[in-house]
Amino acid sequence: MQLAYQFKIPEIIFGRGSIRQVGICARRMGAEKVFLVTDPGIIKAGWVDAALLFLKSEGIKYEVWQGVTPNPRDYEVEGATCAYKESKCDVIMAIGGGSPIDLAKAVAVMATHPGTIHDYEGVDKITNPLPPMIMVPTTAGSGADITRFAVILDTRKRKKMILVSNTLIPDISITDPLLLTTKDPELTANTGMDALAHAIEAYVSTAASFLTDSYALTAIRLIATHLRKSVSSKTNLQAKDAMAKASLLAAVACSNALIGAVHAIAHQVGGMFDLPHGRVNAMLLPHVMEYNLPACMERLGVISHILGLPVQNRSLREKARYTIEEIRNLAREVGIDDKLSNYHLSLQDLESMAQNALQDACIITNPRDIGGEEICEILRHVI
Amino acid sequence: MQLAYQFKIPEIIFGRGSIRQVGICARRMGAEKVFLVTDPGIIKAGWVDAALLFLKSEGIKYEVWQGVTPNPRDYEVEGATCAYKESKCDVIMAIGGGSPIDLAKAVAVMATHPGTIHDYEGVDKITNPLPPMIMVPTTAGSGADITRFAVILDTRKRKKMILVSNTLIPDISITDPLLLTTKDPELTANTGMDALAHAIEAYVSTAASFLTDSYALTAIRLIATHLRKSVSSKTNLQAKDAMAKASLLAAVACSNALIGAVHAIAHQVGGMFDLPHGRVNAMLLPHVMEYNLPACMERLGVISHILGLPVQNRSLREKARYTIEEIRNLAREVGIDDKLSNYHLSLQDLESMAQNALQDACIITNPRDIGGEEICEILRHVI
Repeated sequence: MQLAYQFKIPEIIFGRGSIRQVGICARRMGAEKVFLVTDPGIIKAGWVDAALLFLKSEGIKYEVWQGVTPNPRDYEVEGATCAYKESKCDVIMAIGGGSPIDLAKAVAVMATHPGTIHDYEGVDKITNPLPPMIMVPTTAGSGADITRFAVILDTRKRKKMILVSNTLIPDISITDPLLLTTKDPELTANTGMDALAHAIEAYVSTAASFLTDSYALTAIRLIATHLRKSVSSKTNLQAKDAMAKASLLAAVACSNALIGAVHAIAHQVGGMFDLPHGRVNAMLLPHVMEYNLPACMERLGVISHILGLPVQNRSLREKARYTIEEIRNLAREVGIDDKLSNYHLSLQDLESMAQNALQDACIITNPRDIGGEEICEILRHVI
Repeated sequence: MQLAYQFKIPEIIFGRGSIRQVGICARRMGAEKVFLVTDPGIIKAGWVDAALLFLKSEGIKYEVWQGVTPNPRDYEVEGATCAYKESKCDVIMAIGGGSPIDLAKAVAVMATHPGTIHDYEGVDKITNPLPPMIMVPTTAGSGADITRFAVILDTRKRKKMILVSNTLIPDISITDPLLLTTKDPELTANTGMDALAHAIEAYVSTAASFLTDSYALTAIRLIATHLRKSVSSKTNLQAKDAMAKASLLAAVACSNALIGAVHAIAHQVGGMFDLPHGRVNAMLLPHVMEYNLPACMERLGVISHILGLPVQNRSLREKARYTIEEIRNLAREVGIDDKLSNYHLSLQDLESMAQNALQDACIITNPRDIGGEEICEILRHVI
């Protein structure tokens, strides 16, 4: 019997100026007091003040929590959870990139579950309902506002834990492309390449479906057309709109088709060296695509057409190779190096990272079976 | 300021054999007793017995309600609501085409609201939360398992009332393509053309967005490729899969991009003569597309490519006309006449239908402004 597909996403609100809907949305979720997770950069950019205005205008109280770093850590979850419980808040909101949103999701888990966040690593470990969650992404990349994933750094093991559960899908995602105008070019490049990795991994995933394919392909086309422009200019609103749409579509695709070896390996590299997730994905992506090529040559060929590459009269294999080369070029052109310089790995570290990657939930839907040896080989390309 | 898009859909489960998930889904919704709306044809086909087995295996009680006709009527809502309230059920389920699903939605409204169903006609009139709803479509067309719409016949006024509200979006939609194997060819044709009307109206709607466009186009491609085959054979499972997917994608698109004049006018014709909704849509569709052509020539041109028509080196206007002609051909080839024979309208009836169509919620997002005169002109083509 054919496997049934399951497809679930939050309610989505999208449009310039839609941040003004945070108050109405919070009220709809029954909020009396909102726990708002964000980071100092977002506060400085003025977006939190804007959001608080719209909460106040609905008579909703709030507690702002900004104790979150890139690659949010297990101990940050503990601190934030204490603050959440003391604050007597009833709705959780995040305004930020993947880090504040993932921290907010982890707080939601710990609000209604015993133990520590480590107990909920893996697939479907979260059993109780979570508080209502409203997410406002600011980076056009992580997609955490849409997905059923949360990623938290296990600081003792120096690896990222991935939590996968339907209950981690937020209730409402509010994407306002104007919030992208305060991002610096490096963050724009890294997070844009993260969205591209989501779209490509979702499109070649063994769990891809008719519900995810067209979104993944549209995201790839938008990113290939607009990421360079978005990195080049803070004020190109057309490019910001396009990247915000691409991030959203890629997130819907990857949350439901799941992802693959790029993310499984990136979680280890990012955890070991505390590097930006999108940048690590960008470096790994062409190497994993090369490895996966025999398993998904047709689909890589389709992408070559979406990218508008000159592949008429080319064989499927050549089309797939053109696609991989174009992804490599795009990463370079937005300023991401092919290799991590100044980082070194012992053989023991390398093998332990490979073993951890094999345990990562993302590896399950990679289109080609992969072992520790092959992961080590891929890692040697980038470190 | 740009309008914000809002996008909301149920959790979707899709796959051959997925009817077996009704029990688990009902339990997830907290069901102790399910109110199951269906019709005698579905019961005869054996699908209700199958579903009851899976409810029983989860220890869930049920009450089966089969008092529903095509184009469900206001008085049927009253009867079913009484039965629902007496039965002490806590979750509403429908297994069937658009009629049982729309009746189930109307029962959900009346379960938590005073008055009669007529009080909730129009946009956003439903204010209270509704009981959990799980829908299992059997026709690959209505899309009511996905949409924020419900359509009920006002028997006194002989017109269809359309109810539009986010709260009418079911919690879970379970699409099992195997359920399509017991449909007769005429129903397959009518409902397939209904899905096509959803996809085309959503694609040219003034509220179309990046979240609905690719779904609408994929639906159009699937229907153009598989509807003839599905009408030709009850057992062509590949065609049933494709039509089930198309119906689902078209419904997601039209629930969120909304629809247009085809549906606004069809609601009046269907209400006046009690005709199959999909058949009326199929007859109206080419005429409304002709009328809308100046407002959406580019998009009708895109559809010509999706349909694989020989339009290379053709002007945009020619491409659009090819598209309309192909839709007309498709309707004929699945056995739908161009015109209603044996029906006659007085001038007064015609004008009253046009006025009612102008009041229909679907008219708002039609790509070209339309008045009573133009609607009468379109009606004269089909009656």
